[in-house]
Amino acid sequence: MTPDMLQIAILREAYRQKTLSPKDVALEMLRRIDAYDDPAVWICRVKDADVFARAHELEEDAGALERLPLYGVPFAVKDNIDVAGLPTTAACPSFAYTPEVHATVVARLLAAGAMLIGKTNLDQFATGLNGTRSPYGAPRCVFDNRYISGGSSSGSAVAVAAGLVAFSLGTDTAGSGRVPAAFNNLVGVKPTKGLISTAGVTPACRSLDCVSLFAASAADAQAVAEIAQGFDASDDYSRQGPAVRLPLEKFRFGVLAVEQREFFGDEEAGALYEAAIGRLGALGGQAVAFDYAPFRDAAALLYEDAFVAERLAGIEAFFAAQAQDMDPNVRAIIRKGQNFSAADAFKAAYKLRAFARKAEGEWAKFDFMLLPTAPTIFTVAQMAEDPIGNNSRLGLYTNFVNLLDYAAVAVPAGFRPASKLPFGVTLIGPAFSDSDLLVLADRLHRALGQGVGRAVGEGAEIPAAALLPVPAEAIQVVVAGAHMSGLQLNHELTGLSGRLVETTRTAPFYRLMALPGTVPPKPGLVRTPGFAGPGIEVEIWSLSPENFGRFIAGVPAPMGIGKVTLASGAVVPGFLCEAFALEGAADVTGFGGWRAYLASK
Amino acid sequence: MTPDMLQIAILREAYRQKTLSPKDVALEMLRRIDAYDDPAVWICRVKDADVFARAHELEEDAGALERLPLYGVPFAVKDNIDVAGLPTTAACPSFAYTPEVHATVVARLLAAGAMLIGKTNLDQFATGLNGTRSPYGAPRCVFDNRYISGGSSSGSAVAVAAGLVAFSLGTDTAGSGRVPAAFNNLVGVKPTKGLISTAGVTPACRSLDCVSLFAASAADAQAVAEIAQGFDASDDYSRQGPAVRLPLEKFRFGVLAVEQREFFGDEEAGALYEAAIGRLGALGGQAVAFDYAPFRDAAALLYEDAFVAERLAGIEAFFAAQAQDMDPNVRAIIRKGQNFSAADAFKAAYKLRAFARKAEGEWAKFDFMLLPTAPTIFTVAQMAEDPIGNNSRLGLYTNFVNLLDYAAVAVPAGFRPASKLPFGVTLIGPAFSDSDLLVLADRLHRALGQGVGRAVGEGAEIPAAALLPVPAEAIQVVVAGAHMSGLQLNHELTGLSGRLVETTRTAPFYRLMALPGTVPPKPGLVRTPGFAGPGIEVEIWSLSPENFGRFIAGVPAPMGIGKVTLASGAVVPGFLCEAFALEGAADVTGFGGWRAYLASK
Repeated sequence: MTPDMLQIAILREAYRQKTLSPKDVALEMLRRIDAYDDPAVWICRVKDADVFARAHELEEDAGALERLPLYGVPFAVKDNIDVAGLPTTAACPSFAYTPEVHATVVARLLAAGAMLIGKTNLDQFATGLNGTRSPYGAPRCVFDNRYISGGSSSGSAVAVAAGLVAFSLGTDTAGSGRVPAAFNNLVGVKPTKGLISTAGVTPACRSLDCVSLFAASAADAQAVAEIAQGFDASDDYSRQGPAVRLPLEKFRFGVLAVEQREFFGDEEAGALYEAAIGRLGALGGQAVAFDYAPFRDAAALLYEDAFVAERLAGIEAFFAAQAQDMDPNVRAIIRKGQNFSAADAFKAAYKLRAFARKAEGEWAKFDFMLLPTAPTIFTVAQMAEDPIGNNSRLGLYTNFVNLLDYAAVAVPAGFRPASKLPFGVTLIGPAFSDSDLLVLADRLHRALGQGVGRAVGEGAEIPAAALLPVPAEAIQVVVAGAHMSGLQLNHELTGLSGRLVETTRTAPFYRLMALPGTVPPKPGLVRTPGFAGPGIEVEIWSLSPENFGRFIAGVPAPMGIGKVTLASGAVVPGFLCEAFALEGAADVTGFGGWRAYLASK
Repeated sequence: MTPDMLQIAILREAYRQKTLSPKDVALEMLRRIDAYDDPAVWICRVKDADVFARAHELEEDAGALERLPLYGVPFAVKDNIDVAGLPTTAACPSFAYTPEVHATVVARLLAAGAMLIGKTNLDQFATGLNGTRSPYGAPRCVFDNRYISGGSSSGSAVAVAAGLVAFSLGTDTAGSGRVPAAFNNLVGVKPTKGLISTAGVTPACRSLDCVSLFAASAADAQAVAEIAQGFDASDDYSRQGPAVRLPLEKFRFGVLAVEQREFFGDEEAGALYEAAIGRLGALGGQAVAFDYAPFRDAAALLYEDAFVAERLAGIEAFFAAQAQDMDPNVRAIIRKGQNFSAADAFKAAYKLRAFARKAEGEWAKFDFMLLPTAPTIFTVAQMAEDPIGNNSRLGLYTNFVNLLDYAAVAVPAGFRPASKLPFGVTLIGPAFSDSDLLVLADRLHRALGQGVGRAVGEGAEIPAAALLPVPAEAIQVVVAGAHMSGLQLNHELTGLSGRLVETTRTAPFYRLMALPGTVPPKPGLVRTPGFAGPGIEVEIWSLSPENFGRFIAGVPAPMGIGKVTLASGAVVPGFLCEAFALEGAADVTGFGGWRAYLASK
């Protein structure tokens, strides 16, 4: 049976066990879509026959399951991203065109075996955070159809949260990939700008746009991200860079100072934010209040200064000819772009740079931030009453992120006790910290233990698999003498940011020899095949490759670094010594270690 | 006696020997300034009494010479850079104001002991590459007063080239720190954006502006740069980054394809460019022709697209109120900025990004570029005939550099045989490659051997001191067996970007033992105190610390890395082996090396 919420690892296991086939899943998805009572989720669906043909093609391909990481995983694409042969509307019918090639990200997902189900509704031209700005209707929050789904990636979020697909693509310029995640109890990944190609995406603000991912869990989002991202020469904004690592066990996370917390009267949201802070603290974090002002001020530039003209730059010819066909709120926002001169654009860039510099000062206080994803949620009726003002309120904690070049992961943070509506928080890290940010988001999500998407309550599913961090490259070195903790040369390790991993013993076939004439006194660890001694006490230290290299280069003769076999059988780099130096050395093996020998003297 | 061209090392040595004092130098500078027959060099001079007071202050300060790297070094500042208490005019009298604090860079230089002589003329608002756009007159080329000095840092270049100061500050947005260097036989450094603070500099294009340096030699420019640069929190565009290293011995340098070379009929300039390519080739470089199109296209954005509006953004209030007070050519250029909307500015940024992406493809072909600094030179009369067109021609090879975020060093490249006017070339490298770029520029300059500034001809001065590269951190490792060139494990070194430094021998007290049972067959290098053998053939390889660490971590027992003493007496990390492994090993020392032993089998 197909679970209510599809998770990639579970789905792949079912495929492997043959308890499900891609055709079963396709059938079930189409059944659920028919049964789901929100008509505004999809703008265009892949024909049923084509979905089955795709499932059939996968089933006929021997070895495809093992070869294709997204084999038979159903997904949806926001309708401002090109799928060859289907119209791209950007939720504006008179803008629509039918592309001949897939957007790069779509091509990558399909090549990895994913099954496309359809294209989803959005706030027109991805301009909005609420989901009501579309002639195709307003998708509703999966928990309460009086409430907005959030936007602009409205249909994409609902499709995942309602179990209609396993994951979906959104886009995110000001929060469009995060706010709908919060309102539908999903993980929403806003990657570092340029990590996922935007070739084939209708621009909102081209220099800020990101393709985003919605999934039930951080592990699923990571599985999709690994396929979706990659340098694309056809996207001038595509970027690559080494992963920025975050501390995962003991970390400092920035939180809103109490006097800067604004939930627009939604006190339950405030309490859920406080609870999330506590939960993250319990996972090894220290909460640090910081000054949100430079971030808030940067955020304001996006709609209230010349940056709004970038929305016009992307569709200028269409706007000149057919603005009358547009959603009136979207039109009013984009029209504001006409009020700014090129000189204003440069001056706005200067303001942004000044806020970025102030923001750097705040970043010195923490490793990453934990913010509310959105301060509150509105009903569709409330949005109609104040469409611009309420939308602006929704973006209070999201608008600055792309402008300031950060990565973000929105993650569920529980339900408001009274309204039963979900609340979300977002982890925000430096550009290229995406991978570790997802690991932290996963831990926070799993610690919540309240289900995924619409599948909540008693016995609800939780994220199926924990997301394991990519290991940092580190080299271990076994020390047996003066480099051990507290001894004369230990500073050489600590000075290179070395970390003590454990104290243990060697295999029994080592002798410990006190080398004559060494300063400070040093032992030689001598492998002696056939000897059955007590094993010698050693410490294992961990260093970066660079610092390991520096450390070794500084080791004087007659000492050297070779391989040491531990009592566990592990073979680890460690100290040895040249043969000549053993002449006249005293065998101190009986003490069981250098520290014990020193103590005896 | 004060030399015709002041070089910092020579000046410091004279101060040390007490053959000169700061007062002597101050006196001589003021004498030369009075005698120099170009009235357009200075906009404002420090009062003579104040120059002497400064010299006196330095002389009275015991130990100042050793403490202050620019002790008693006379310098000039372009008049768009603030000096407290002197007016900043930007060559526009009605724009002038008198700042209360120094620009950061001026403060740093003064704190290092430099002696300020005055503020120099410029193309108004640093808009121009020719030096004629100033109500304070047009400084002339030091070699022929019919010719332009180049601009916009006109007075700063002439002041150095005429021996009136030892170095000067310019600014450079489109080539203003390079073109005047070429026309006056100087080194002109256009640092990576943000390395030298622009706090206290009148903006031309604020996001592109750099403070530049003119000096007689690359070594002097480096000495000044070391003081001038440094992070400045008061400059939102200040940046820091690790130095990007360039290969200095064997390198590929990009040159204009023959069909893309444009000298506007100045065939002597073309021949001098060709000669510079030959000279750089002789220094270890391989010239690689590349496609200049994306760079030329990027350059065109600066004045012919919305980027010109950044010049307006910097002085918008002044322009609105007092444009009538401006130089007519400068006014016409800046007025063009009013023609562009904010959407145009975003679209211009997209075009730049597209050119930058194409440029990346060209950079894959070379380590740095060698371009003509300017294609030709004009007389003052020629500039008057076509002030916009000829200025644009001057910038053909400079305008793209700041837009695309590169570092550049302009360096003398000889004199046109007929006109006796100097020609210059510019080395252009990636951002943060400044330090190595200066080393290469120094070598190219010294290879020319034709004097500095106005001091040329028979017996002329050449750069006094060679600029030595900052050593890259590399670790050497001695290999004596299967890791040597062409043997089975050599790929482990080459795969880690290892570089063969030399083939040499160990000290005589090593034996070479063929270790039994090793795969592939390996020798052990065994230090044997007292033994006098032939010395063993070894290779020295060089690795980065990181790759050295990775290499060592992969070395299996019984091998290890310790220290090996070479025939030269040098002690270098190298292979050794554990004592137990020597049991049953054959002594092959007599072969003199592993390669000879293998050949004998």
